[in-house]
Amino acid sequence: MALDNNARGVYVVASTPFHADGRVDEKSLDRMVSSFIEFGVAGITVLGQMGEAPKLDYAEALSVASRVIQRATVPVIVGVSAPGFAAMRALTSAVMAGGAAGVMIAPPSSLKTDDQIVTYYNDVAQAIGNDVPFVIQDYPLTFNVTMTPTVIRRIVESNPSCVMLKHEDWPGLEKITTLRGFEDDGSMRHISILCGNSGLFLDFETERGIDGAMTGYCFPDMLVEMVRLGMAGSRDAAHDLFDLRLPLIRYEQQPGLGLAVRKYVLKRRGILASDTQRKPAATLSSQAKEEIDYLLSRIARFDERALLTRALTSTSQESD
Amino acid sequence: MALDNNARGVYVVASTPFHADGRVDEKSLDRMVSSFIEFGVAGITVLGQMGEAPKLDYAEALSVASRVIQRATVPVIVGVSAPGFAAMRALTSAVMAGGAAGVMIAPPSSLKTDDQIVTYYNDVAQAIGNDVPFVIQDYPLTFNVTMTPTVIRRIVESNPSCVMLKHEDWPGLEKITTLRGFEDDGSMRHISILCGNSGLFLDFETERGIDGAMTGYCFPDMLVEMVRLGMAGSRDAAHDLFDLRLPLIRYEQQPGLGLAVRKYVLKRRGILASDTQRKPAATLSSQAKEEIDYLLSRIARFDERALLTRALTSTSQESD
Amino acid sequence: MALDNNARGVYVVASTPFHADGRVDEKSLDRMVSSFIEFGVAGITVLGQMGEAPKLDYAEALSVASRVIQRATVPVIVGVSAPGFAAMRALTSAVMAGGAAGVMIAPPSSLKTDDQIVTYYNDVAQAIGNDVPFVIQDYPLTFNVTMTPTVIRRIVESNPSCVMLKHEDWPGLEKITTLRGFEDDGSMRHISILCGNSGLFLDFETERGIDGAMTGYCFPDMLVEMVRLGMAGSRDAAHDLFDLRLPLIRYEQQPGLGLAVRKYVLKRRGILASDTQRKPAATLSSQAKEEIDYLLSRIARFDERALLTRALTSTSQESD
Amino acid sequence: MALDNNARGVYVVASTPFHADGRVDEKSLDRMVSSFIEFGVAGITVLGQMGEAPKLDYAEALSVASRVIQRATVPVIVGVSAPGFAAMRALTSAVMAGGAAGVMIAPPSSLKTDDQIVTYYNDVAQAIGNDVPFVIQDYPLTFNVTMTPTVIRRIVESNPSCVMLKHEDWPGLEKITTLRGFEDDGSMRHISILCGNSGLFLDFETERGIDGAMTGYCFPDMLVEMVRLGMAGSRDAAHDLFDLRLPLIRYEQQPGLGLAVRKYVLKRRGILASDTQRKPAATLSSQAKEEIDYLLSRIARFDERALLTRALTSTSQESD
Repeated sequence: MALDNNARGVYVVASTPFHADGRVDEKSLDRMVSSFIEFGVAGITVLGQMGEAPKLDYAEALSVASRVIQRATVPVIVGVSAPGFAAMRALTSAVMAGGAAGVMIAPPSSLKTDDQIVTYYNDVAQAIGNDVPFVIQDYPLTFNVTMTPTVIRRIVESNPSCVMLKHEDWPGLEKITTLRGFEDDGSMRHISILCGNSGLFLDFETERGIDGAMTGYCFPDMLVEMVRLGMAGSRDAAHDLFDLRLPLIRYEQQPGLGLAVRKYVLKRRGILASDTQRKPAATLSSQAKEEIDYLLSRIARFDERALLTRALTSTSQESD
Repeated sequence: MALDNNARGVYVVASTPFHADGRVDEKSLDRMVSSFIEFGVAGITVLGQMGEAPKLDYAEALSVASRVIQRATVPVIVGVSAPGFAAMRALTSAVMAGGAAGVMIAPPSSLKTDDQIVTYYNDVAQAIGNDVPFVIQDYPLTFNVTMTPTVIRRIVESNPSCVMLKHEDWPGLEKITTLRGFEDDGSMRHISILCGNSGLFLDFETERGIDGAMTGYCFPDMLVEMVRLGMAGSRDAAHDLFDLRLPLIRYEQQPGLGLAVRKYVLKRRGILASDTQRKPAATLSSQAKEEIDYLLSRIARFDERALLTRALTSTSQESD
Repeated sequence: MALDNNARGVYVVASTPFHADGRVDEKSLDRMVSSFIEFGVAGITVLGQMGEAPKLDYAEALSVASRVIQRATVPVIVGVSAPGFAAMRALTSAVMAGGAAGVMIAPPSSLKTDDQIVTYYNDVAQAIGNDVPFVIQDYPLTFNVTMTPTVIRRIVESNPSCVMLKHEDWPGLEKITTLRGFEDDGSMRHISILCGNSGLFLDFETERGIDGAMTGYCFPDMLVEMVRLGMAGSRDAAHDLFDLRLPLIRYEQQPGLGLAVRKYVLKRRGILASDTQRKPAATLSSQAKEEIDYLLSRIARFDERALLTRALTSTSQESD
Repeated sequence: MALDNNARGVYVVASTPFHADGRVDEKSLDRMVSSFIEFGVAGITVLGQMGEAPKLDYAEALSVASRVIQRATVPVIVGVSAPGFAAMRALTSAVMAGGAAGVMIAPPSSLKTDDQIVTYYNDVAQAIGNDVPFVIQDYPLTFNVTMTPTVIRRIVESNPSCVMLKHEDWPGLEKITTLRGFEDDGSMRHISILCGNSGLFLDFETERGIDGAMTGYCFPDMLVEMVRLGMAGSRDAAHDLFDLRLPLIRYEQQPGLGLAVRKYVLKRRGILASDTQRKPAATLSSQAKEEIDYLLSRIARFDERALLTRALTSTSQESD
């Protein structure tokens, strides 16, 4: 099930569940994978930023990835970013042998110039093997590396094994349009573009031409629904749905705090047994938990009300 | 009308209007000030980041500030951040003589350690004069300077002329709670805290104990309403209102693009004659403009629908 | 005396002398300019980083620049870097009218990508006027902007008024060779390249093809001698001389401390009446002053001894 | 042979030798260790920045460290910096079991505030075990984390297992004096301070009170001599020796290029069979190699001449 440039839909970014004492919680991991599949995700990404990958040692990382790959009936992408190519190659080789669909690689913050970024990904492709499908993670807010559309095109054109962009530049709407323009004018081959950033701009990103989302938002089922509706082109309905979820999406997108929110909700939903993170970790105050609970109660209420409102106003709305 | 630590409400951050050829548009400036006053703002901040202050020469900056001060019937805070103290002192001295209520100062990105930040603000207070009320602008995303609550307390305790915090840390909710806790336990005197960040977390910030908002969101009238409702403690109603505005708030908060969105809307609202920015400036594509128009149309529609929905559901909602 | 791309020799970066109470010390300024001319410098740069430019208000900056221009019999370059184009244009216009040879502009640290850097300098050239000769200041350690040789070529090729590079990249030797290679292969027109970084690599930079130095090293007379010898091609003699000065050059090149060292030595040499800096400023401890005194005593001693040593060993040395 | 706070002398930072095809070259590794011991080093540091640690996978890293520990007759410090604590703990545990004297840990660049830095090292100490002696690596130029003396004191006071500071702040002379002052006034217990930065300020650092050097300068034998002389207090002789080495020290200290210089010289000296680095790596141009060769020839020549000069001038010199 190799990843290719036609991937579409929601690739949910998986958390790594821990017991309260910090050991990997395999039972929760299995339940999480099952839930994701039920939710209708198109793929799963493990060992990403939100998977606390740097907090796992090599054996643990490999074990988590392998377990997810074995249980998932959808393609699994493995984050293999590492400070050096040897570790990156070792993990890539192991997970690809174990059935991963492809790998995802973030740029190190030491990269400054356009050429340095392109050279880095060229070296990456060679290091992991030119036959391994890989995903560029473009997330300047966290990685402090800014990739222009031209830089991405150079990477794509030099490396046939580059099949996907995880797009989380900010602002990023024009970037999608520019990249799709490159495809239209024939200057870049088609790649899959999935959006991250917790989905904060998903309403317009679908309109700009993405293929789906890759993020760890705590309601992957809602992501699936939003992406489906957004890509179906029913604009008002898609935005209506998105707007109801936005307050929580926004809350979850707080840098450094997002994972705590995510695990807290996944626990409340019965998917994780514990919301434990390994150190270093931001924790939620009781007030923050109450705020999340409140947002959840509003989603529940709005979901009901939305039915009523839509019934009352759908005619005028769609004819706008 | 000197600024003090009891300031409350919305201090709107004013744009600087330009003619299409780049000259300052004084007529639009006057109209903008009048509109803000009508909207019920408690104060106006000029020459902030969003006021394109660095793109004005000294004479222009002073002229814009003076004009706003003369026309405004509310306190005016002037952004005087500068690469050095001489220019900061010169502008401060001129605007305070002209009737400004206080000044706002952002930290230079060269500051790295806690002590460096505290020393900087101590030096600032001395440079501009210890009798000039000043506002700390705490905006790590843009300035790349991270101030802990303890650092803010040290600045406040050393400098009686520090009366306000423009809070736009991210995540920032716990910071508000911690600072208010310092006041409660007597370890820090009370200061006014107004929130920025386009109001992206205004719904919870009001609950955490802020005194209002200081941001340039293109609907200051809505800000006034949201802050009023939020601080009145009617939780559901405040969130209902906030949620309807959030999609646009979120759109406007895109780094580097926010001002373009803001000026575009202010022009559409008839407040600015032109949405011209001086260089360097990000511009809106036609697609971006269409997206904003769409968001505006949804706000209009939702405002109507909100009336209906509230009528239908208010009982169950408030008794929740 | 307009600056052009054939500028050669030492352009000394002038400090701004202050009285102990912080006022500009015009008498010292005059004496400094006279000394520089006596030392044989080819030009003078004012209002650079080391000229404490950001600590001067506009009137002071203009006054200092004008005074130096009036007294100097060599071309004067004025640093006009500013957070925005309006202030940059205003100062440029004033100093060019007053007889400056050209201006120098550093990139703002917000620039991330190749295109952003090129666009910035294109906008600069338009903002200050395409007839004003300008110098690119390439100093990544301080400005956090990395310009590849290709980026510099793009700026040079787009802007005929770009006549000089102040080169202080680090490491930077290959960059000189690459840029000179661009000139050799016809892909870039010739520009003057003067080296900064306190001269820390001046020994090899002259061999790599620079046209001189632009730095504020506290012995501009030695710089003149080193550049002359280095460009004359007498390798051993040039390195002998350089090596004797290197311990002090190295000491002076400490980030944030360099100006204090420089002013201390200029005061000891009787050129400045006071080594006062305006705030914010690093100061020298008594131990640091003693270390500088010691380095100065060694230079004095070595200068004598060098005569003896050269007499004794020059034959074997040059035939090496 | 556990590391403690009385460590003194030169702890040489070892390169990791590779064959031309990229495999670890164990024969060169053994020869390098033997050479270091012969040179009189007091200890060896492996898997540091200059040891290309991030380019080794876990098995390789452990194998290199173990091999050095087994062959060395001096304490071996192992760099265990990692993006997360799990990998750090795993490597620490393995090398300490294998006989390492202690470990060295650099701060991640994500740390911004004083508290974040202190918390990080507290967490580190707990993660690796409070009985494992550790070294703080304080290198702001590379890691972009600035630790004040007060922060270092807080770490030292909270963690009895912190026994050493690798000091490569820049400027850093006052920091040494401040830290030693903390020891003198009883506010901080004594720790060993070894200096890095290629030794660029070693002449004065020994005078300020360090205990030695920890750097990978390509002539560890010279480092040993310089540190011995510097700590013996024979000021002129120490500086004479230092000054002769400074041109090469300076050349080797170029960021990103240093390792290439170092390996090139170690190969020329017959210690390494190849100067191969793993990717990503900066390489030396032929011109750079010629420059290094020239610096080496000057060192050789000066070493001879120094004997002559000293004989001729030593009387006047020491009586200065």
